[in-house]
Amino acid sequence: MEHEFNEKTRGRLLSVSTATLTTIMFKRGFRNCFIGGIQPLNAEHARMAGPAYTLRYIPAREDLDQLKVFEDRSHPQRKGIEECPPGHVMVIDSRKDRSAASAGDILVTRLWKRGAAGIVTDGGFRDSADIAKLPFPAFHAGPSAPTNLIRHHAVDLNVPIGCGDVAVYPGDMVVGDMDGVVVLPRDIADQVAEEAAEQTIFESFVQERVMAGESIFGLYPPSTETREAFRIWRHRTGA
Amino acid sequence: MEHEFNEKTRGRLLSVSTATLTTIMFKRGFRNCFIGGIQPLNAEHARMAGPAYTLRYIPAREDLDQLKVFEDRSHPQRKGIEECPPGHVMVIDSRKDRSAASAGDILVTRLWKRGAAGIVTDGGFRDSADIAKLPFPAFHAGPSAPTNLIRHHAVDLNVPIGCGDVAVYPGDMVVGDMDGVVVLPRDIADQVAEEAAEQTIFESFVQERVMAGESIFGLYPPSTETREAFRIWRHRTGA
Amino acid sequence: MEHEFNEKTRGRLLSVSTATLTTIMFKRGFRNCFIGGIQPLNAEHARMAGPAYTLRYIPAREDLDQLKVFEDRSHPQRKGIEECPPGHVMVIDSRKDRSAASAGDILVTRLWKRGAAGIVTDGGFRDSADIAKLPFPAFHAGPSAPTNLIRHHAVDLNVPIGCGDVAVYPGDMVVGDMDGVVVLPRDIADQVAEEAAEQTIFESFVQERVMAGESIFGLYPPSTETREAFRIWRHRTGA
Amino acid sequence: MEHEFNEKTRGRLLSVSTATLTTIMFKRGFRNCFIGGIQPLNAEHARMAGPAYTLRYIPAREDLDQLKVFEDRSHPQRKGIEECPPGHVMVIDSRKDRSAASAGDILVTRLWKRGAAGIVTDGGFRDSADIAKLPFPAFHAGPSAPTNLIRHHAVDLNVPIGCGDVAVYPGDMVVGDMDGVVVLPRDIADQVAEEAAEQTIFESFVQERVMAGESIFGLYPPSTETREAFRIWRHRTGA
Amino acid sequence: MEHEFNEKTRGRLLSVSTATLTTIMFKRGFRNCFIGGIQPLNAEHARMAGPAYTLRYIPAREDLDQLKVFEDRSHPQRKGIEECPPGHVMVIDSRKDRSAASAGDILVTRLWKRGAAGIVTDGGFRDSADIAKLPFPAFHAGPSAPTNLIRHHAVDLNVPIGCGDVAVYPGDMVVGDMDGVVVLPRDIADQVAEEAAEQTIFESFVQERVMAGESIFGLYPPSTETREAFRIWRHRTGA
Amino acid sequence: MEHEFNEKTRGRLLSVSTATLTTIMFKRGFRNCFIGGIQPLNAEHARMAGPAYTLRYIPAREDLDQLKVFEDRSHPQRKGIEECPPGHVMVIDSRKDRSAASAGDILVTRLWKRGAAGIVTDGGFRDSADIAKLPFPAFHAGPSAPTNLIRHHAVDLNVPIGCGDVAVYPGDMVVGDMDGVVVLPRDIADQVAEEAAEQTIFESFVQERVMAGESIFGLYPPSTETREAFRIWRHRTGA
Repeated sequence: MEHEFNEKTRGRLLSVSTATLTTIMFKRGFRNCFIGGIQPLNAEHARMAGPAYTLRYIPAREDLDQLKVFEDRSHPQRKGIEECPPGHVMVIDSRKDRSAASAGDILVTRLWKRGAAGIVTDGGFRDSADIAKLPFPAFHAGPSAPTNLIRHHAVDLNVPIGCGDVAVYPGDMVVGDMDGVVVLPRDIADQVAEEAAEQTIFESFVQERVMAGESIFGLYPPSTETREAFRIWRHRTGA
Repeated sequence: MEHEFNEKTRGRLLSVSTATLTTIMFKRGFRNCFIGGIQPLNAEHARMAGPAYTLRYIPAREDLDQLKVFEDRSHPQRKGIEECPPGHVMVIDSRKDRSAASAGDILVTRLWKRGAAGIVTDGGFRDSADIAKLPFPAFHAGPSAPTNLIRHHAVDLNVPIGCGDVAVYPGDMVVGDMDGVVVLPRDIADQVAEEAAEQTIFESFVQERVMAGESIFGLYPPSTETREAFRIWRHRTGA
Repeated sequence: MEHEFNEKTRGRLLSVSTATLTTIMFKRGFRNCFIGGIQPLNAEHARMAGPAYTLRYIPAREDLDQLKVFEDRSHPQRKGIEECPPGHVMVIDSRKDRSAASAGDILVTRLWKRGAAGIVTDGGFRDSADIAKLPFPAFHAGPSAPTNLIRHHAVDLNVPIGCGDVAVYPGDMVVGDMDGVVVLPRDIADQVAEEAAEQTIFESFVQERVMAGESIFGLYPPSTETREAFRIWRHRTGA
Repeated sequence: MEHEFNEKTRGRLLSVSTATLTTIMFKRGFRNCFIGGIQPLNAEHARMAGPAYTLRYIPAREDLDQLKVFEDRSHPQRKGIEECPPGHVMVIDSRKDRSAASAGDILVTRLWKRGAAGIVTDGGFRDSADIAKLPFPAFHAGPSAPTNLIRHHAVDLNVPIGCGDVAVYPGDMVVGDMDGVVVLPRDIADQVAEEAAEQTIFESFVQERVMAGESIFGLYPPSTETREAFRIWRHRTGA
Repeated sequence: MEHEFNEKTRGRLLSVSTATLTTIMFKRGFRNCFIGGIQPLNAEHARMAGPAYTLRYIPAREDLDQLKVFEDRSHPQRKGIEECPPGHVMVIDSRKDRSAASAGDILVTRLWKRGAAGIVTDGGFRDSADIAKLPFPAFHAGPSAPTNLIRHHAVDLNVPIGCGDVAVYPGDMVVGDMDGVVVLPRDIADQVAEEAAEQTIFESFVQERVMAGESIFGLYPPSTETREAFRIWRHRTGA
Repeated sequence: MEHEFNEKTRGRLLSVSTATLTTIMFKRGFRNCFIGGIQPLNAEHARMAGPAYTLRYIPAREDLDQLKVFEDRSHPQRKGIEECPPGHVMVIDSRKDRSAASAGDILVTRLWKRGAAGIVTDGGFRDSADIAKLPFPAFHAGPSAPTNLIRHHAVDLNVPIGCGDVAVYPGDMVVGDMDGVVVLPRDIADQVAEEAAEQTIFESFVQERVMAGESIFGLYPPSTETREAFRIWRHRTGA
C-alpha cells in the first residue's frame, strides 16, 4: 500500500505555508482540510510534507488493552512504526482525545530513524520534552503522559480515518508548519502545490511592498498595475 | 459476519437496567462500557437488546460526498441499512458530531421494518419527530437536520468502532434504556445478563422495603439478616 | 426595514421539514444554514416560518447593564419586542451563551400577541414552563433563569447577526420544526420552498413504500422504474 | 448542623419562580446564584424549596473506590441519605461530571421517604426513569447509568461546596422549578422570598395586561399610571 | 470616529500588569473585563495599550463569502486595516471561533506599518510564525491557517462588540501583557491607570520584601507598620 | 498534618518521567492518576516531586469574596502559602476554572522562598511572566489575570481534593515534568518510584539502541535476547 510521490511536489510543499494551501484548496471548493488545534513539538522542525500512512485507534477496553499486547508484533501501533514507508507521514486518529498518549519518544525516535517525514496525532504524545529535541516534525494537541492502553486501542493501519475532524485517506499529502497541518487529496496534490508555489512568490512581492509602506488596496488582491509591477519584480529578482 | 445470540440472554437484558449492568461490569473490571449523553427518541420504546452491527463514519470531503453517492448500492450507509441482520442493533460511529445527521426517518423506518432491534448513534438523527413515533428503539445525542454528506462519510461496515468514547466490536451485546446504552463484550454477555437478572430481583426486594420505610443501612448492601429475609421473600413471591 | 414575503412560500415552508430544506440547500452549495442544538419549548407548536427580525446582544458590562435600563423605550430588547413586524421571526444572537436569559414569558407573550411568527435564540429563555404553554414557536438551547442583564447587553436591532454559528440577515426566511431551525437567504427562499415541497411529496411516496416493506435500493434515490411509479402514484393520489 | 427555617419563607419560595428570584438577587448584587444546565426529572414535581444539606464528591481512585465501601455505614453517600434532615434539599457536588451516577433510585426513594424536600446534583442520576416517577423534586444534568464508584468518591457531608459553578453553604435556601435551581444565602432568604412574592404579584398583573393586548412600554417596568392601576387591581383582586 | 487619548495614561498602562488592572477594576465593581484564553504571538512584544477600534465578524455564508470580495475596498476587514487610527488597537469579534483565520501576516504587517498599537482576536491568526517575528503586539487564541472566508464574514467596523465574552466599545482602552488582555471603559481609563500605577509601585516594594524572605502576613495586604515602611522605601528609592 | 517522606524516593522521582510513572501505575490498576492539560510555566524548572499540601476553592459569592478578606490571617489561601511545609507541593482545586487566578507572583514567590517543592493548579496563575522567571516548578492550565475573588473562594486546607479530575489526598506524592503532573498514593509511592527508576534505566538502554537504528520488535518490549543484552549493557555502563 505504498504510494509514489512527486519529489518536486514535496519540495514545493516544504516551501509554502499551510495558510496559502488552504486558500488554494478553498478556490477548488475544499473548506475542511485543515487540522487545527495541534502544533509541532519542535518549532525548528515544523515544516513537513509527505503522503499519509494512517493508524486508527478506537477506545480501549479493559480486558483487551493490557501491557502484554505490545509483545505481539502484529499490534498495529508497533507494526505501523516499523512499516510506515520512508518519506511518509504517520497520521493517527486518536478521536481528539489526549487523555492518554498516542505514542512516546521511543516509538517516535524509531519512526524518525526509519526515514518517515513526520507524525501527526489529534491526541497527545508522552515524553514530549524528548520528542521536542528530535529534528523531526511531530504534531499533537498537547502532552499526555498516560500509556495509550488506558484510552486507545490500535485497530487498523492505512485505512481512511478522521484526524482533527478532517478526512485523511492513505496517500493524501500531509503538510505542516507552525499553524498546523493541511491534508491534500492525492490526486490534486501536484496541482495544488504548483499553484501554491506561484501564490507564495506573489505574496513575497506583496509582503515586500507592505514592508515598504504600501497600502493593501490595489496590492492585495492586485490591480492591473500591481500585476504588471509583479511581472517586472519577478523578472528582476528571478523569483 | 452474522452472530448467533442467546434468546434467553436477550430476554434477561430487556428486563434489567443499564444501571445494574454497569455495576455487574464494574465488578469484572470494566469501567468504560456506557455510552452516555444519548437518549431514546421514543420513551415508550427505550428498552433495547441485540448484537452490534456497526457503521463507521469519517469526516466528509467536499469532492467525494455529493448527493450522487447514494445511487451506489455499495454505499456503506445504505448497504448497512439493508444488510443489518434482524435482531441486531446498528451502532454508528459519528465521532460524537451531531452537526449533521447520522440517518433520517426513511432509513430508520426501513431498518425497523427489516427486523433490527434498534439503532444507536453518538451523533444525531434528522426527522426526529417522525422517528420518535416509530415503535423502535433509536438513540442519539440530539436532533440534527443537515444531510450527513456535509459532515460524515460512511466508510466501513461491521468493523470495531468507537461510539460515545466506548469500544464497540461487531457482535457485542448492546443494551439500552432511558439512561442510555451499555455495550457488553460478546463472550461475557450471557453471564453478565444472568448476574444482572439476579441482582435485579434483589433490587426489587430492596425497593419494596425502602418504599415501606426501611433504612438502607443493613439493606443495601444487605446484612446477613437481609439476605435471609430476601431468601424468604423470594420463595414467597416466586421472583 | 420591513420585508415583503410570499404567503405561498410560507405555506410551503410550514409543510416541509428542516431536514428536507437542508438537502435542497446543500444542492445549491449551502452547508451551513442549520442552527443546531436548539429545540422548541412547545412541541405542539414547533412548526414556524417567517422572515428574520434580529436582535444583537454583546456581553454585559456592570456599569451599563442595570435594571433601570429597561425604563428606556429605546432599549433594543424592549423596542424589538414592540417593533418586530407581524409574521416575522425574532432571531437573537446570544453568542450561544445560556448563562442568562435572552427573554422571559412576559416579553415572549407580548411578541406572540403582536402577531410574530416565532422567536429563536442560541441562548436560553427564563420562565420556560410558561413559555412552553403558549401556542407560539419559541426555540432555545435550554432554560436559563437569570435576568439577561448579568450577561447580555442588547445593542442593535435588525442588523446581520450570527445565531448558533449561522449567518442571519434581516429578511432571511427562518423555518423551524422539532429538529431545529434553518435559515434561507431571502432571495432564494421561494425557489427553495418550491423545490422542498416537491421533494416532500416524493418522500411521502417513499415512506409509504418503505412502510409496505420495500427496500431502499432503487427507491431512495429512485431508479427509472421508481420515478415512473411515483408519477403514477402522484397522479392517482393527487399529491 | 441542622438549620431552622421559616415555613412562611418556604411557602413563598414554592410560589415564585427562579427567574424572579434571580432578579431580586441581582438587585442585591448577586450575579452567580443560579445552577444552570440541570433540569427536574419529574416535571410535575419541579417546585422545590428547602435548606441545603451538602455532599461532596472528589474523583474516584481505583484502590479506594470498590463496591465493598458501601458496607461501611459511615460512607458519606449512604450516611447522607440517612441523615439529611427532613425538609432539606440534598445538594451534591459532582464536579459537573455526569460520566457516572451521583445516586440511583433506591437512594433517592429513601431520601424522599425520609421527608427530604428534594435532591440536586450537577452530575447525573441512574435509574432516571424510575426516579422520574417519584413525586419528588430531583434535578440533574442528565441520566448516567454507571455506578458512582467509577468516577466519584464521597468524601464530606455538609461542608461548603460548589454545584454547577455556584457556591452552596449548608443551610442556604435552595429553590427549584423548570428553569433550574437558585441558591439563596440563608441570612437573606426571608427578605428575598418576601420581595419575590411581591414581584410575582406584580408580574401576574402585567401578564394579565399583556394577554389583553397591552404594550410593555409603560407597563414593564411600570409607569406612574401603571403603578396606580396595579394598586387598584391588587385591591380589587385581593392578590 | 477617532478617539483622543491621554499619552500619560498610555505610558502608565504600558508599565502595569493586566493582573493589577483587574484588581483595580474589581474594586470598582467590574468583574468581567479580562479576555482570557488568548496570548501574544511575540512574547517580546506583549505589552500593549491603546483605544479600541473594532471589527465585527458574523458567520460566513457560502454565496457571499468568496475570494472576489477582497477586491472591494469597502470590505470591512481590508478597510479596517487601512483605517484603524494610529495608536489604536484593532479588536476583532471572531465569536471565539478559531476554525478559520481572523487575519494573516500581510494584513497584520500593514496594520503595524500604519502605526497601530496592536491587534486582538478571540479567534486565530494564520501565518502565525511570521506574525510572531513582528515587533508588534498581536493576541489570539491559537494559530489557524484557513482563510477567514470559510467561517467569518466581516460586517461592521467600530461598533460595540464582544471579544472573548467581554464587551468592547470603540475607544475603550485595551491593555495586554503575557496574561492576556484587559478592556477598560474609556471614561474611567485615566483613573484606573493612575490607581494601577500606584498599586504597582507598592507591589514592587512587596515583591522586594518577599524576595528578602518576609512573610506575606502584615505585608500583603499591608499593616500600619508596612504602610509606614513603604512610605519610607518610596521616599528613599524615589519610586 | 505534616508527612514524612523518603528522600531516596524524591530523588528517584526527580529522575523519572511522568510517562514512566503512569505505566507503573497502570500495572497496579491505576488508570486515573495524571493531571493533564496543565504545563509548567518555567520549562527549565519542570521537574518536581514532593508530598501534596492541598487548598480547596469553591465558587466565589459576591457578598463574601471582597478584597478585605485578605486582611484575615486565617484566610485559607494566604494561610496555606505561609504554612505549606518545606519540600511539599501545594495543589489547588480550582475546579478546572481559569477564568480567575488561583494565585499570583507575590504568593508564589513567597511559597518558593519558604522552601516548597512546587505549586499546581487546574486553573491559572496571574503575573505568569514573572512566575515563569522563578526557579520554581509551577503548573497551571494557562494564564489568568483576574483576582481569584471574582470566581474562587478559598475554603479548606489540606483536605482531599480533586485537581484536573484526579483525586489528591494530603501527603500523596506529586510529580511533574513537561508532560504534566502525576499523583501517587502515599503508601505506594516508594515502590512505584523504585520500579520507575528501574524501568527508566531499561528505557535508556532501549533509546540508545533505537538511536543506533535497531527495530523495536524484540526490543520494546524485550525478547529474551534483549533482556540478556540489557543485563550486559547495565553491567558495562554501571547504570
